[in-house]
Amino acid sequence: MKKVLITGFTGFVSKYLLDHLADSPDEFTILGLSRSQYFEAFSIKNLTISVKKIDLTNQAELQSILEQFRPDHIYHLASDSSVSYSWLKPIESFQNNTNIFLNLAESVRLLGLKCRILSVGSSEEYGMVEAKNLPLTEESAFNPISPYAVARVSQELLSKVYVQGFGVDIVMTRSFNHIGPNQKGNFVISSFAKQIVQYKLGLASTIEVGNVSIIRDFLDVRDVVKAYTTLIASGATGEVYNICSNQGRSLEEVLASLMQLAGIDHPYTSNDQLIRPADNPVIVGSNAKIKAHCGWQPLIPFEQTLRDMLQYWETQLMGR
Amino acid sequence: MKKVLITGFTGFVSKYLLDHLADSPDEFTILGLSRSQYFEAFSIKNLTISVKKIDLTNQAELQSILEQFRPDHIYHLASDSSVSYSWLKPIESFQNNTNIFLNLAESVRLLGLKCRILSVGSSEEYGMVEAKNLPLTEESAFNPISPYAVARVSQELLSKVYVQGFGVDIVMTRSFNHIGPNQKGNFVISSFAKQIVQYKLGLASTIEVGNVSIIRDFLDVRDVVKAYTTLIASGATGEVYNICSNQGRSLEEVLASLMQLAGIDHPYTSNDQLIRPADNPVIVGSNAKIKAHCGWQPLIPFEQTLRDMLQYWETQLMGR
Repeated sequence: MKKVLITGFTGFVSKYLLDHLADSPDEFTILGLSRSQYFEAFSIKNLTISVKKIDLTNQAELQSILEQFRPDHIYHLASDSSVSYSWLKPIESFQNNTNIFLNLAESVRLLGLKCRILSVGSSEEYGMVEAKNLPLTEESAFNPISPYAVARVSQELLSKVYVQGFGVDIVMTRSFNHIGPNQKGNFVISSFAKQIVQYKLGLASTIEVGNVSIIRDFLDVRDVVKAYTTLIASGATGEVYNICSNQGRSLEEVLASLMQLAGIDHPYTSNDQLIRPADNPVIVGSNAKIKAHCGWQPLIPFEQTLRDMLQYWETQLMGR
Repeated sequence: MKKVLITGFTGFVSKYLLDHLADSPDEFTILGLSRSQYFEAFSIKNLTISVKKIDLTNQAELQSILEQFRPDHIYHLASDSSVSYSWLKPIESFQNNTNIFLNLAESVRLLGLKCRILSVGSSEEYGMVEAKNLPLTEESAFNPISPYAVARVSQELLSKVYVQGFGVDIVMTRSFNHIGPNQKGNFVISSFAKQIVQYKLGLASTIEVGNVSIIRDFLDVRDVVKAYTTLIASGATGEVYNICSNQGRSLEEVLASLMQLAGIDHPYTSNDQLIRPADNPVIVGSNAKIKAHCGWQPLIPFEQTLRDMLQYWETQLMGR
């Protein structure tokens, strides 16, 4: 029975990670950490789950929790992962990405724990890239252009120092945009889906967007968590892996697909407040490395993801 | 009359910056910030100086000080700049490099101050480099291998985001090892000079060293501060400049020169505790960019620096 620590336990990704672990033949004792909510302990199938409320910027408290629980695996999902939030609150964004990761890695080091940490990073680390350098591989250079992107680069560089200088077992990702049902409405595709459903239900008359010409590589969150468990099982210490679909889609294209699936046809309006100070025109990744090293590949068709997202918002909005 | 804010006011570099500003024909009102000591206000020639004690991890207090003082120039010298300390205390090192810089840049942004910030970085940012890529130019890739080095890379990446995303006026350096009288005895060359003087005076019988095969590019602190005032005056916003001598010297070679200048000949002993988990074998920089753009060049001969350092330790140790 493996002991698994999950940070960011009340976040979008964590819910799907639990679903996925619950489908596994193995048994897990899980400790979830969250700053925002407190749950009682609970069980799902093969999972025994307890939860603690903690602000991960408090290193001493985190270390004390780790000392008691002594995890085998740590899925470090906690993050202020919004690029736009990082432009508004750069300090908070940095602390809740880089500093909390450093607190975690340092706690593991100080305790001498023999556990594997999955350090989640972001495709935003690549930043502004030339079209000739696409798709992005793990060898591509960093050129981060937002506070969030810098925070994730810093986290990855710290990871490498902890692996090489201190011998801590860390596997890193650069996770591209993930989407799916349950994602908050401040993330771009979920925002589109929500607004389209609001419009369809007569709850809103406009659909507001930022810069829809940008191209991103979207992956279903259910494929993302499979990549994460795969890396905990068979990723190489100190290596970083792109988690992506290999396919670029413009926001405009995704918006059109969502409208078509929802059966509506309505012009959207551009809202300058949704435009960021600096943005990457194109981010598309190569997932060749994790495919070759670990045998993972995405399985959920893009259209199914969009359907599930629309369905999610319909349930949410009609339930009110 | 320019208003100048200096962080790290009680540090090694600040003293020389004051000396240099005092030799200028211009007048300056200076506010020094330090976490470690408190001085009364004082004057030196053309300088009117006040000092405040502050921990720069306190952003609100820093912002309040900036709002009152409204500097034209900020020399951000504050740093836990020891690589070896960063291996012992990675969190503290990171906070007292990256987070304090972020607090400063964000305070300037929030207040909308029209001032120029000199963001001091380090040659350690380059990290492990192949011999064929020497000397290091500003175009060379990062490969940071210590917590301190990562902290400085993070600071530089944040600087670029503040320039490009927020329009804050920041000029950056990658400062190579600086040495000179008054440097603390935990920095390597100052440690050698101190131990040699201790041995010469009969205060110690051994000279203990770490890995003396490593090669570094050393620059006299008095040349460093001239580079800093030059960059405040004529550096380009958003650009980074190497501050270095263009010349590599092994620690072994410097140790031999110091012994020769001190007139002693004594074997040194290797102390494993002084060996770091990971270290760069060779760091040598090119100062072509700052020479070409700003006309700065180093003026103090290396031997004079070493003589002055021995003289400093003689005065310190004989005064006891």
